[in-house]
Amino acid sequence: MATSTTRTKRGKGRDKQAPARPTQKDIALAAGVSQAAVSLVLNKTETPSVPPATRTRILQVAQELGYQPNHPARMLRSARTMTFACVIPDITNPFYPGLVRGLQTVAAPAGYDVLIFDTDGRPEGEARAIDWLLQGRADGVVATFFHLRAPQLAVLARKGIPLVRLESQHKSDGPLAIDSVYIDNAEAAAEMTRLLIARGHRRIAMIQAEFGPSQRRAQGYGAVMREAGLAPDFITDSAYSEESGARAMKRLLERKGDRPTAVFGASDVLALGAMEAARAAGLSIPSDIAIAGFDDIPVAKLLGLTTVRQPEFDLGALAAETLVKRLQPGGLAAPGRSHELKFEIMKRSSV
Amino acid sequence: MATSTTRTKRGKGRDKQAPARPTQKDIALAAGVSQAAVSLVLNKTETPSVPPATRTRILQVAQELGYQPNHPARMLRSARTMTFACVIPDITNPFYPGLVRGLQTVAAPAGYDVLIFDTDGRPEGEARAIDWLLQGRADGVVATFFHLRAPQLAVLARKGIPLVRLESQHKSDGPLAIDSVYIDNAEAAAEMTRLLIARGHRRIAMIQAEFGPSQRRAQGYGAVMREAGLAPDFITDSAYSEESGARAMKRLLERKGDRPTAVFGASDVLALGAMEAARAAGLSIPSDIAIAGFDDIPVAKLLGLTTVRQPEFDLGALAAETLVKRLQPGGLAAPGRSHELKFEIMKRSSV
Repeated sequence: MATSTTRTKRGKGRDKQAPARPTQKDIALAAGVSQAAVSLVLNKTETPSVPPATRTRILQVAQELGYQPNHPARMLRSARTMTFACVIPDITNPFYPGLVRGLQTVAAPAGYDVLIFDTDGRPEGEARAIDWLLQGRADGVVATFFHLRAPQLAVLARKGIPLVRLESQHKSDGPLAIDSVYIDNAEAAAEMTRLLIARGHRRIAMIQAEFGPSQRRAQGYGAVMREAGLAPDFITDSAYSEESGARAMKRLLERKGDRPTAVFGASDVLALGAMEAARAAGLSIPSDIAIAGFDDIPVAKLLGLTTVRQPEFDLGALAAETLVKRLQPGGLAAPGRSHELKFEIMKRSSV
Repeated sequence: MATSTTRTKRGKGRDKQAPARPTQKDIALAAGVSQAAVSLVLNKTETPSVPPATRTRILQVAQELGYQPNHPARMLRSARTMTFACVIPDITNPFYPGLVRGLQTVAAPAGYDVLIFDTDGRPEGEARAIDWLLQGRADGVVATFFHLRAPQLAVLARKGIPLVRLESQHKSDGPLAIDSVYIDNAEAAAEMTRLLIARGHRRIAMIQAEFGPSQRRAQGYGAVMREAGLAPDFITDSAYSEESGARAMKRLLERKGDRPTAVFGASDVLALGAMEAARAAGLSIPSDIAIAGFDDIPVAKLLGLTTVRQPEFDLGALAAETLVKRLQPGGLAAPGRSHELKFEIMKRSSV
């Protein structure tokens, strides 16, 4: 893919000029605190010794005075890597590369390289990613974790490494530099389920994976099914993969009486596997069986797959913008925020 | 994707036991050289001071005596990262994630994490990858470079960082620790072109990209066309992307008289773009226009795309095995080798 991103050299273009810059000493004077406290706060040192009120005051004064760090000096001091890490569960799932592209498009002009770490969606992989990050290999992280929870991730924020999580729902604000970006997965799945019901389907099955966002998607589907007086019909296979989708579809097709007339894959790769299995069984889509997905991966359009569009590029770009802000002076002090983007139902020929 | 790889902890399982290990002193005695020379060679120090014949002798004796390095000590000494880097031109091209998976499947049990660096297929991106690698961020590299040539890559080998390139043809052996893995791209494209001719096509166009392996593929196609008395018909767009493929196909369809009856995309993503553009123009595949690709990306089967199968998983696994060997004692001294794997023509419904 030829993105039109103009990549600038590492670090270039960040600090343009320095005419009569306020120093840390100026800030200490204006805030009525010690210069040591200013240094600790502005250099993002772990600062249990600076009371929160003082920290806030220092950051406010720094902002008022238009304080800008001396960039090359700061790089030396804090050994910044000018690298963002993107931690994803499966590089072969075409949803994530789009996210990475969005991330790169913002990171590159800000001077950051992007490294990708694939956890294979497993607890050990996620633990290895954290180990690697704690060795100081990246300045900030955009990540999808299926297994690790907030307390296990707090160690990053405490080390001064901001984290933006790709989430499946709103997260309440927290004290640490852990933000999130998301679309409302439950509402998106609910809307797709309403579409399937509106098209006359009553026996609608959902193919789920064991971990990750499919739980929220299942909630949205289940709620709408029950509202409509229909029985939710879940079939769970292990992973977000075509193999899992095909296996689940085969199990559905082996049923005698209550074979579903529509199948909702909790992700597009699950839906693709289901399509493959349905065609292998000689079924036509959608006349014999309707199939819907979730993500809108690049190939969904060519396959005519009706799906939920997640703006993966925009999610990646927003995550990168959030990290860039976090890595500006005082950026780590702001509370963790949850940023919502909009989904869209893409109606194509598979439903 | 749930691979069944068992990931072991970093470094574990590499040195099982050490019963009466031969030391570097034993090797020096047996080889009749100084212990300093043995140390230089076995610790992979840059060794212009040790003559090649001596180096070879030391490595032979080390192997004969079954020398094994003291692993934890060696890690400390050489600051190994237990990380492989995978440098690719485009993470959104579904060919590369399969390569990465193959790499991970061998790297993980050997104790290596895999980091992915996306160059965007641009010279600046490739230069940034080299900069990053020269900072000592990885022990070995698997890479596809579109722009950098051997002399620009030699700096890695000289720093003791072995490199395995994904190539489009055989490369002659060289003195440095730069190996390659490849399928014969020219012969594969020639075979696909023969298939198209055998199916009765005479006006066959090839959609190319500006850089990378499409050059060798074009050679194979061009040679077979000329042999058959047909005129090669190249159309070049910038990148290996659906956008480029769709744009090239539109230009082909705008022609008046000599519109091709078959289009050979120099990669699957180019072929996918061509399919999209053909369908958007109301054409049926293959009755109105036949379309072939190159790579056999995962979705090719579902789309019925006739294509050349590159064993991307096996290429990645072989590259990783090569790196693991290179990082064993004395591994950097062996000449650079080129390893060929077999391609396969996948006949489906698009031709």
